[in-house]
Amino acid sequence: MNTDDQNHTAVRGRGKLLTLDNMNPKVKRVEYAVRGPIVQRAVQIEKELREGVKKPFTEVIKANIGDAHAMGQKPITFLRQVLALCSYPELLKDNQFPEDAKKRAQRILEACGGHSIGAYSASQGIECIRHDVAHFIEKRDGGIPSNPDNIYLSTGASDAIVTILKLLVSGEGRDRTGVMISIPQYPLYSAALAELDAVQISYYLDEDKCWSLDVKELRRALYAARQHCNPRVLCIINPGNPTGQVQSRQCIEDVIRFAKEENLFLMADEVYQDNVYAEGCQFHSFKKVLFEMGPEYSSKVEMASFHSTSKCYMGECGFRGGYMEVINMDPEVKAQLTKLVSVRLCPPVPGQALLDLVVNPPQPDEPSYATFMKERTAVLAALAEKAKLTEQIFNTVPGITCNPVQGAMYTFPRISLPQKAIDKAKEEGQVPDMFYCMKLLEEEGICLVPGSGFGQREGTFHFRMTILPPTEKLKLVLKKIKDFHLRFTKEFS
Amino acid sequence: MNTDDQNHTAVRGRGKLLTLDNMNPKVKRVEYAVRGPIVQRAVQIEKELREGVKKPFTEVIKANIGDAHAMGQKPITFLRQVLALCSYPELLKDNQFPEDAKKRAQRILEACGGHSIGAYSASQGIECIRHDVAHFIEKRDGGIPSNPDNIYLSTGASDAIVTILKLLVSGEGRDRTGVMISIPQYPLYSAALAELDAVQISYYLDEDKCWSLDVKELRRALYAARQHCNPRVLCIINPGNPTGQVQSRQCIEDVIRFAKEENLFLMADEVYQDNVYAEGCQFHSFKKVLFEMGPEYSSKVEMASFHSTSKCYMGECGFRGGYMEVINMDPEVKAQLTKLVSVRLCPPVPGQALLDLVVNPPQPDEPSYATFMKERTAVLAALAEKAKLTEQIFNTVPGITCNPVQGAMYTFPRISLPQKAIDKAKEEGQVPDMFYCMKLLEEEGICLVPGSGFGQREGTFHFRMTILPPTEKLKLVLKKIKDFHLRFTKEFS
Ligand SMILES: Cc1ncc(COP(=O)(O)O)c(C=O)c1O
Ligand SMILES: Cc1ncc(COP(=O)(O)O)c(C=O)c1O
Repeated sequence: MNTDDQNHTAVRGRGKLLTLDNMNPKVKRVEYAVRGPIVQRAVQIEKELREGVKKPFTEVIKANIGDAHAMGQKPITFLRQVLALCSYPELLKDNQFPEDAKKRAQRILEACGGHSIGAYSASQGIECIRHDVAHFIEKRDGGIPSNPDNIYLSTGASDAIVTILKLLVSGEGRDRTGVMISIPQYPLYSAALAELDAVQISYYLDEDKCWSLDVKELRRALYAARQHCNPRVLCIINPGNPTGQVQSRQCIEDVIRFAKEENLFLMADEVYQDNVYAEGCQFHSFKKVLFEMGPEYSSKVEMASFHSTSKCYMGECGFRGGYMEVINMDPEVKAQLTKLVSVRLCPPVPGQALLDLVVNPPQPDEPSYATFMKERTAVLAALAEKAKLTEQIFNTVPGITCNPVQGAMYTFPRISLPQKAIDKAKEEGQVPDMFYCMKLLEEEGICLVPGSGFGQREGTFHFRMTILPPTEKLKLVLKKIKDFHLRFTKEFS
Repeated sequence: MNTDDQNHTAVRGRGKLLTLDNMNPKVKRVEYAVRGPIVQRAVQIEKELREGVKKPFTEVIKANIGDAHAMGQKPITFLRQVLALCSYPELLKDNQFPEDAKKRAQRILEACGGHSIGAYSASQGIECIRHDVAHFIEKRDGGIPSNPDNIYLSTGASDAIVTILKLLVSGEGRDRTGVMISIPQYPLYSAALAELDAVQISYYLDEDKCWSLDVKELRRALYAARQHCNPRVLCIINPGNPTGQVQSRQCIEDVIRFAKEENLFLMADEVYQDNVYAEGCQFHSFKKVLFEMGPEYSSKVEMASFHSTSKCYMGECGFRGGYMEVINMDPEVKAQLTKLVSVRLCPPVPGQALLDLVVNPPQPDEPSYATFMKERTAVLAALAEKAKLTEQIFNTVPGITCNPVQGAMYTFPRISLPQKAIDKAKEEGQVPDMFYCMKLLEEEGICLVPGSGFGQREGTFHFRMTILPPTEKLKLVLKKIKDFHLRFTKEFS
């Protein structure tokens, strides 16, 4: 570009050097509904309420994001005791802390540079914590070995997921890497693919079968995509966000077989592995199923699986802890991965410490065990109750159909919208479910995410709601949505 | 790529799907010397020592990275007290904590979702902390206004720097974005540019003038680059890493004038802003100088400046706290920036809390003030002493020439290497300063980073050493390097 062109561009952007016209076009294509316009409006409304503006409600209830503590869930005592001890080791002299909390803190501090969580750690994560993660995985998976060298600690699962996608993306035109993601999906995936300029290959979950995954649909999507890109990766979220389904062992086997046959790198997002509520449902890790399928699979299928401190019973989102395990990765590629993560120096050390406690919780013979188990069980039991409640109440509303919330922290009910509402939304230049959710927010102060932010079959409409509000508040939310939905349907009929 | 090609590729990678041949080529081009092969060897040697392998030394001293706590610097009491209180608010009932620490913790907790640092924050960072950052900047810059909406909290400065580069990069072929970075540079910059496929435009700092920056050299580099790319960004590190220079006010003015004339977006990396030691040197923020140059500049030049909790007197690297301030950014671009950072949800909240304390430290009328000031002053005074010591001792060694360490935490002395050593290195397929540093590591247990990892003028050789080891240990290190250098020179003469 010569200087004349540059000046021309600058004029278009009202005198600015960096404008919407000349910024990174890949960043422009990124979309992220979970924190999109509806959330921005919710924050604005909260401000207006604080400033005394009259509304038909007194508080905004944000059921748009899986953020347990923000919804009032209390931190697990043991985790926070150890973190306090790590932050201010003077407290190790204090009698108010249980011995096992002190022991854990001491062990973590000894593994830190200068015995301080303020030192950078190794880029892959603190070595003894990577060992603890490997033990945790082995125990979870019934003894299938896990190698600490294959564990990478991360800044939340988000960071690890984007890092692996980064490694996998290459090519131009028809050679561009294609990545298969479910629809509906967690929008981190589509956002990362836009930023990395990879091709998104959408496969649809089957709403009529409780959002289950069918290999036939994977095959359809893959074969269609092969016409225009180079599909190399298959991403699975189990338990599912936003759809709340828990995959059966059979389904996971089928997926693994498919990945092997079709030469796909598997990414298993298992951040909700402890969040399973429905009877008859159980979490099966992709790693475990892979190894149980025999050496033909376990020595061959390349995979990364992801976990986080943000979900499950702890809900410690703010600490940005997480890890991934890579399996069957070419050692040369692994060396590149290690180099890549070293550029950002290291994941946050308090998050690493927290992760260590999650993978290595109090044991039955330790003083913190009873309280820890009580708190953990209470959180998971409340979630299970709320999962059921949500399904039940939504299914009493004409025009709302809701699958069971088998796991995770969300419900993704289908809503039927009258044609007049759809037309009105179009008139206002909004997608219909955004129109619906915005109206719900303005009238009832409830913040949900429209289904269009996650993807849905053409002509269907949904919203995502978390089941995290405390039971009484959740009941209120459900009632308000019910009333709103009936009112909305009437208004536009 | 058809299936045959894929199989072919897979065979090349010994049966793997993802191989060095077919992975993201941009990631492959990334280099990061600060945590490169020499550090990996150092870790190995540490392991060997633990296993009882005999060496000519008993410990490895890692002077390769600016990690104060790892080198024994103690955390600042006030910071850690507040962090412990935020982690485990039960401690607010405890009499052992000073009132101001409790007040700070309470204020931070009130700004968190559900009053927990375990909740996700707003993606741009917690609002009241962004306000505190803005106040801090205003105070630092003599009252020049700072808008909290222009503050973005980040996962260390690394994250913010890469994010801004990401926004700025676009174009193909001759339109590819060019980014000017100093040589020697902090290798985060070259690594990010490789990953983003932007063009690195190198401008050289003047070693003979204490690593100062000359606008003539900027102009030379820019004009040459315009032949083959679209230069849009100028990055400055002040105080400098790895070179330790502190820029004069005049120099900063010249750079700003140059950026305006040449339509460059300015990135000012000011993470070492409190690390200024040399007499007559003073830190001037780019923001302040920009605004003092008058509205013609302050309303026009687009800029981002970066700060971190990792350096200065606190050295809290593990918390990954940081912020950037964007100035004169097009509102539409800012909206894109906000969207982009929301994909990763939020920076670590403990790091945000820590940053809040750094920008809002104890005040003279508060109980923690005296201790805080004592600790802060002691750290900075020790660094100043070590900066001087390092320069003095190195300059007594024939074959080592060392500029004054005016600021930051590093020295980047020039070493003359005998031709025979250069030939020997070539024989072993190593760059000469890597050969030198590896030998130093094997013989003396001292881990430095070769100058080639940062860039240097062709035919010159350097290494980077931090001045962070405790004074007595630093003296030992300097003596060992001296002895080694003399021995090395003799061996290859
Ligand atoms: C399926 C899924 N994966 C990954 C993440 C990222 O979580 P974090 O980065 O907080 O670990 C989330 C967060 O909601 C999620 O729902
Ligand atoms: C000049 C410079 N910028 C940025 C950083 C990144 O620091 P952090 O990401 O820990 O804030 C460093 C770290 O050494 C640095 O030296």
